[in-house]
Amino acid sequence: MASTDVKVIGAAPSPFVNRVQIALNLKSVDYEFLEEKMGSKSELLLKSNPVHKKIPVMIHGGKPICESLIIVQYIDEAWTDGPSILPSDPYARAMARFWAAYVDDKFYPTFRAFGSAEGEEAKAVAREQLMEAIMLLEDAFAKCGKGKDFFGGDTIGYLDIAIGCFLGWMRAVEKMSDIKLIDETKTPGLFGWAKRFGSNAAVKDVLPKTETLVEIAKMMAAKAKAQ
Amino acid sequence: MASTDVKVIGAAPSPFVNRVQIALNLKSVDYEFLEEKMGSKSELLLKSNPVHKKIPVMIHGGKPICESLIIVQYIDEAWTDGPSILPSDPYARAMARFWAAYVDDKFYPTFRAFGSAEGEEAKAVAREQLMEAIMLLEDAFAKCGKGKDFFGGDTIGYLDIAIGCFLGWMRAVEKMSDIKLIDETKTPGLFGWAKRFGSNAAVKDVLPKTETLVEIAKMMAAKAKAQ
Repeated sequence: MASTDVKVIGAAPSPFVNRVQIALNLKSVDYEFLEEKMGSKSELLLKSNPVHKKIPVMIHGGKPICESLIIVQYIDEAWTDGPSILPSDPYARAMARFWAAYVDDKFYPTFRAFGSAEGEEAKAVAREQLMEAIMLLEDAFAKCGKGKDFFGGDTIGYLDIAIGCFLGWMRAVEKMSDIKLIDETKTPGLFGWAKRFGSNAAVKDVLPKTETLVEIAKMMAAKAKAQ
Repeated sequence: MASTDVKVIGAAPSPFVNRVQIALNLKSVDYEFLEEKMGSKSELLLKSNPVHKKIPVMIHGGKPICESLIIVQYIDEAWTDGPSILPSDPYARAMARFWAAYVDDKFYPTFRAFGSAEGEEAKAVAREQLMEAIMLLEDAFAKCGKGKDFFGGDTIGYLDIAIGCFLGWMRAVEKMSDIKLIDETKTPGLFGWAKRFGSNAAVKDVLPKTETLVEIAKMMAAKAKAQ
């Protein structure tokens, strides 16, 4: 679908930006990607998201929409002729929204805390909290996916996008540390899901390569140390 | 509408619980209110919301739904024969969701910080931040309401509920301090809106009385000091 009136202000390594890209791909909506430079904010970004001044912002027909999960819901509601992103059943929708909010409010801060923890004790605590958060997502996969391929059932949906956008960074963290965040024994549900999600046509060119993210993480750590 | 299979686990002074009550009233859905005692958590609450262990929880046909804004959206989607709570236009829905998220993520923490700030300087900073947050809501009222009675247009909608649930506590804070959070000069939009919202049939018996909230606030402050 040619939609030259869709612009995404973002940065390729951002999982939150990746959510928007995946949702647009699922709906086969073309868009122009406006890359924000790291460490600076464009005038268009500041004008489009004056409240939070954060990426991603999607501009559709000149109107800006902010906050990744809100953008994904907007995409689902604005392009109704593509495959549905949210489930149709109200209870399933509520569950998808609940776990997506969990990802942003609990999983993501825990994931960040693990990445920045220093010292053996702090690292061990952060690691345990992160593994607890992941085990809850493993449970959520069983509850929401009900034995199917995705959190959304047979196809990729809202919750798949909300969690799946972190797969690249999770792999980068696995590569830089000695722990497996998702593996066949502890998290068999997520293990199979991650493979299917990552290789999906709407996803595979969006999720950044592990090596790229490892480089970025090292660069950011060095920068943080220098400050 | 008789819906004896709807239960709300909550506490009357909680603005987040009030959201659920207002939404159910708007849809004319009867419900059983299960009051949680302050300072303890019932087994039903812990079983129904094992992830956050927080009120409100709505149980519909035996199935629990958690997180106030998610519950309000569920109510809108499960009882489609009542008046719509979210706007029908995708962009208006995205705006309502954006500002509702702003209320929870920015306004509410700022409001709490103002309530608990100690010392003249800290109070002045917290007061300024709170007034900035309220001025943004005044702008949002102009943008979303477009000169109509409510954020949702001619009738109470999602964003009205998200913000309006705090009116009781805002009045309590006004009563306990020397500042006006919403007044006719600085925030004329919110001033008129607050009157209309508070006197609406779906709202007026839900919002706790200012005096009750002042008593609760004093009790909580005394308890915090004693610890």
